[in-house]
Amino acid sequence: MKPKKFSLTKISKYLKKPWTPITIARVDDYILNIAKFENNYHWHRHDKDELFIVLKGKIKIKTRKGNIILNKNEGVTIPKNVEHCPVAIKSSIVLMFEDSKLK
Amino acid sequence: MKPKKFSLTKISKYLKKPWTPITIARVDDYILNIAKFENNYHWHRHDKDELFIVLKGKIKIKTRKGNIILNKNEGVTIPKNVEHCPVAIKSSIVLMFEDSKLK
Repeated sequence: MKPKKFSLTKISKYLKKPWTPITIARVDDYILNIAKFENNYHWHRHDKDELFIVLKGKIKIKTRKGNIILNKNEGVTIPKNVEHCPVAIKSSIVLMFEDSKLK
Repeated sequence: MKPKKFSLTKISKYLKKPWTPITIARVDDYILNIAKFENNYHWHRHDKDELFIVLKGKIKIKTRKGNIILNKNEGVTIPKNVEHCPVAIKSSIVLMFEDSKLK
């Protein structure tokens, strides 16, 4: 069976509830998630790195060292153990790439 | 120091030579690469999974079980050990997510 493709545009339409990622692809033990961001998430940290890429909208990732503003087609890796707080400046669609066992 | 963001739009402009990925982000031992695809690559396989997402253009990934056509905003994971041959149907910009030690 040939590998099954995904469409970011189609999956984006299924995202109703904010901050609730859907896993759209796997790469070994890593996953590609997509989520809707709206309003504020909360301060937290992980034991592994986390990559964000904004597909639509505009977000701010607050860190204790300063804020990172991400427009459409911009991204950043938040290193492991770095406390951060994602905030949607506009309603946004965001890709996240991370270890499937991320805590 | 706060984490440094990247712009897919800006980096895309630096891509001159096809099939020559630039690493734009790291996630633990994994890397996010971006490359220009033009004409044909060659048949090969890796010992780890490889994720492709088309940012611009249109590509075909040939496998021995069939071809996968990816338009803009579409992607697929080619599982480890699956022989594949990427082909640019149009000149394309493609994201790849993979183990940094991919062989």
